[in-house]
Amino acid sequence: MRLATRANGTPDGELIVVSEDQGRARVAGPRWPSLLSAFGDWSAAEADLQAVDGCLAAGEGEPLDPASLRAPLPRAWQWLDGSAFQVHADLMQVAFGTDPIPSDKPLMYQGLSDRFYGPFEPVPFRSEADGIDFEGEYGVIVDAVPLGTGAAEAQTYIKLIVQINDWSLRKLAVPEMKTGFGWIQAKPACSMAPFAVTPAALGAGWRDGRVCLDLTIHWNGAHFGNANGREMRFGFHELIAHAAATRDLVAGTIIGSGTVANTDYAKVGSSCISERRAIEMISAGKPKTDFMAFGDRVRMEARSPNGGSPFGAMAQTVVDLRTLRPQLPGN
Amino acid sequence: MRLATRANGTPDGELIVVSEDQGRARVAGPRWPSLLSAFGDWSAAEADLQAVDGCLAAGEGEPLDPASLRAPLPRAWQWLDGSAFQVHADLMQVAFGTDPIPSDKPLMYQGLSDRFYGPFEPVPFRSEADGIDFEGEYGVIVDAVPLGTGAAEAQTYIKLIVQINDWSLRKLAVPEMKTGFGWIQAKPACSMAPFAVTPAALGAGWRDGRVCLDLTIHWNGAHFGNANGREMRFGFHELIAHAAATRDLVAGTIIGSGTVANTDYAKVGSSCISERRAIEMISAGKPKTDFMAFGDRVRMEARSPNGGSPFGAMAQTVVDLRTLRPQLPGN
Repeated sequence: MRLATRANGTPDGELIVVSEDQGRARVAGPRWPSLLSAFGDWSAAEADLQAVDGCLAAGEGEPLDPASLRAPLPRAWQWLDGSAFQVHADLMQVAFGTDPIPSDKPLMYQGLSDRFYGPFEPVPFRSEADGIDFEGEYGVIVDAVPLGTGAAEAQTYIKLIVQINDWSLRKLAVPEMKTGFGWIQAKPACSMAPFAVTPAALGAGWRDGRVCLDLTIHWNGAHFGNANGREMRFGFHELIAHAAATRDLVAGTIIGSGTVANTDYAKVGSSCISERRAIEMISAGKPKTDFMAFGDRVRMEARSPNGGSPFGAMAQTVVDLRTLRPQLPGN
Repeated sequence: MRLATRANGTPDGELIVVSEDQGRARVAGPRWPSLLSAFGDWSAAEADLQAVDGCLAAGEGEPLDPASLRAPLPRAWQWLDGSAFQVHADLMQVAFGTDPIPSDKPLMYQGLSDRFYGPFEPVPFRSEADGIDFEGEYGVIVDAVPLGTGAAEAQTYIKLIVQINDWSLRKLAVPEMKTGFGWIQAKPACSMAPFAVTPAALGAGWRDGRVCLDLTIHWNGAHFGNANGREMRFGFHELIAHAAATRDLVAGTIIGSGTVANTDYAKVGSSCISERRAIEMISAGKPKTDFMAFGDRVRMEARSPNGGSPFGAMAQTVVDLRTLRPQLPGN
């Protein structure tokens, strides 16, 4: 099953079910006006949504207009982003000039969850000097997870899988890390690809709590990376168990994988600029790739071995906030 | 004006306006069923709420049952907690055995915001071995703050002031700080005192973006601290400007002061156990006060110079989660 959210003028948008060929859709109906509302009673919602999915499989539904789509979950009560790819963590130490992180546990921070940009929304930033970077990653949306849930059991709470761009401001990142408090200024709102899909719908692409699909990234039309999600040191179920060790996870919590990265990065490339810069530092002594400029475009799309695009493509342009808001303070 | 939230079986509860003597209340009405809904259009809500407040001032309203009260804002889209008292930060370095934090900016992390415990709810934890500690602090709730808002202008977005207990698990805190990612396991849900009050209602207790009131804390009936909120290194307006540097703050965002602490701690005491332990380490070479045990009670109440209690008292008992949930995983 594949879900999406259509713009309807409300903060949470309108929940729709999307056909397997992504060409048709049908509204979930008045009982589940939004995906957030569906997470208020997921078991009941899932049954209703599957019934709608059955109608779509039978050829019903209306044509889907991709331009109408927002993030599948435009806002959530909680966004906990991991950093589960060891090679990414290792390369970021090079990029940031920081010491190895002394932890046998997953790395995780709590980020801004009151807004996720849609897959085609322009993304505004205040300044190119902040070091604007993308981070291609996968995420899962969970039903309510009780405190103390172990990793094995955590698998059962994973209801939907999503693809995320965790926008980052690199020049602000290291000073915030050094406080130990995590990131506020370095982590503005993320973006989400059009479709949230059930684990079953990913088929062989979902194994051992990992999204085993290539994440194809293009920056201004040039190929940038093609890393596969299979190399997570900790699977999503382990990230969930980590997060739920001392808190109940509210239904609709989104858990992120962190930037998708592979040990074979020389061949597959990267999922963020900072990591490419670290690779340049290792090979050439200094970084040569700059961060993003206003007007830059980034496109991210997970690909199935058969060429499918389970989450749909995310295609975004970085824009100067001051052009969007002439009345911006300090403008 | 003084607002509170009454339990009514919904996640956000029922918004009520409370009389100045805290003895009577009246529901805000169907247009503003909850405080969160009021932050959907604060200007309009504020006018309506002030009309209800006028009725209360004229002697109308029903008797207020304190036992019915939840946190004034039982859940929010965003909780950004600062650490703005320099003496607290200095003492925590002693307690944690960490280096001074190299930052001229406010310290701030994003915490769990999907649930705030009510003022009299028992607060469950998984284990005394985690180092259960309270942290008495103040907070503000803001209307939507545009990205780039400066500190002076930020004052105008502060709509309500609250009193918070930021529960902390100290044994988990240092390893998480050392990752640079901030706290997940060390920071479970916070509690909130009964009443959210407007800056005007605090009178002289609200000056220069600071809550200039003593925060009286008792632990198991014994006096523990009486620190005043005036010594924040950064005022709330400066914390807001910090948070809004690269993100729009969603309406209803809660910004915390961090643990209230004074340079005169030898006289006034502390607002968390960890800080008292640091003071013991300085004076006697080692800490002698243990963290909380199941069954312990903590009471926090800000006091006005005239003896008033603007936020009401928060009186809570720490309980073993396993007694509440016999089916807890691993139990």
